[in-house]
Amino acid sequence: MEPAQKVVPHFRDELDLLKARLLVMGGEAEEQVRCAVRALVDRDDALAQRVLEGDEVVNRLHIEVDARCFKLLALHQPVARDLRVIVSGVKINSDLERIGDFAVNIAEATLRYIKHPVVKPLIDIPKMGEIAQRMLRDALDAYVRHDTVLAKDVLDRDDELDRLKDEVFRELLSVMLDDPTKTEPALELVLISRHLERIGDHATNIGEDVIFIKSGHDVRHHAREGPAD
Amino acid sequence: MEPAQKVVPHFRDELDLLKARLLVMGGEAEEQVRCAVRALVDRDDALAQRVLEGDEVVNRLHIEVDARCFKLLALHQPVARDLRVIVSGVKINSDLERIGDFAVNIAEATLRYIKHPVVKPLIDIPKMGEIAQRMLRDALDAYVRHDTVLAKDVLDRDDELDRLKDEVFRELLSVMLDDPTKTEPALELVLISRHLERIGDHATNIGEDVIFIKSGHDVRHHAREGPAD
Repeated sequence: MEPAQKVVPHFRDELDLLKARLLVMGGEAEEQVRCAVRALVDRDDALAQRVLEGDEVVNRLHIEVDARCFKLLALHQPVARDLRVIVSGVKINSDLERIGDFAVNIAEATLRYIKHPVVKPLIDIPKMGEIAQRMLRDALDAYVRHDTVLAKDVLDRDDELDRLKDEVFRELLSVMLDDPTKTEPALELVLISRHLERIGDHATNIGEDVIFIKSGHDVRHHAREGPAD
Repeated sequence: MEPAQKVVPHFRDELDLLKARLLVMGGEAEEQVRCAVRALVDRDDALAQRVLEGDEVVNRLHIEVDARCFKLLALHQPVARDLRVIVSGVKINSDLERIGDFAVNIAEATLRYIKHPVVKPLIDIPKMGEIAQRMLRDALDAYVRHDTVLAKDVLDRDDELDRLKDEVFRELLSVMLDDPTKTEPALELVLISRHLERIGDHATNIGEDVIFIKSGHDVRHHAREGPAD
């Protein structure tokens, strides 16, 4: 009888699988954001409800990806760039989970919002939604491909999101002042725009992690540090 | 001549130092939150400005603590609980940095808010500030002492923060409806209460990490998973 062979999974395969699962998770989070904003624009109660239910999928992936990261660290004890890729995976995983939570927050605000008559045509908020989704998608692509050029581009787009958020705030404030009966639903729109801004912040975090992985340099807070390993 | 002795820092000492530095960082973040809320209550322009400047300290600590975590992982290749303590250190470090950002957001909103006449006596918002600070302090104590009882207690307090946030929202909405000239400053207060809620969320994340470190069980999303190592 042959002795049982212990199969040690190859580190590279496991690392590729981790990245693939993070992409799946990112896709789910992005889809949740897309549906939440669509539910708002179309005043679609059922779609908003589906976003609430979809959070379960994101949460399951969150736990799975975390477990993969810990397993990779414990079994293979990577150093240098591989270490940075995996620890950043833990952080990116948290960012994605939080993005899923913001999609839920948007869906909840939408359910309250659509009980009221239309406040105004929505232009800047869907635009914010598109920018945030695109930032997220590109940040994850940048992570998987170690593409710092794309990562830096993601960071630059955060300013546009902030600008739109301020624009939305000013517009909705004047809506409330002109017609106080619109105050309550307009407030929901202000909060929704803040959630979208935060989603952009999390995409920005991912972009910063990508630059750190590649260079070992911490670009956050304009640090002037040397390599981390 | 004696050969030069290579000094390898002892793992336990380095780990204790990491925890100590995380506590310093937590203390700074908590102080920033305290000052931001105090600046709001006292309508203290100079104190709000100091919070904006104080963010630099939190950001420097953020970079330092991250570097310590990576160094510990790369040099000592820990497994099991030590691995979880250090990787959770990276996550907690991100949470603390984000809490510092929210203190800055509160200080910025305060600077805009105090340009307006008083909207209403502030009762629930300072209460939210105290709860959030306390949650943060206890979550960090729980991390350092591996105290899951305290960590669970932190998680429980998040509901009270959410309840107060809803209370604040309802109250400020009726202020706006009664007197639309107060809409703009009241909106700032709504946003401040949301920032405090988020600070509580980050303290909750830290509490969840503490439970994970101790047990290897993931308590987030009510996971029914086995140990992670």
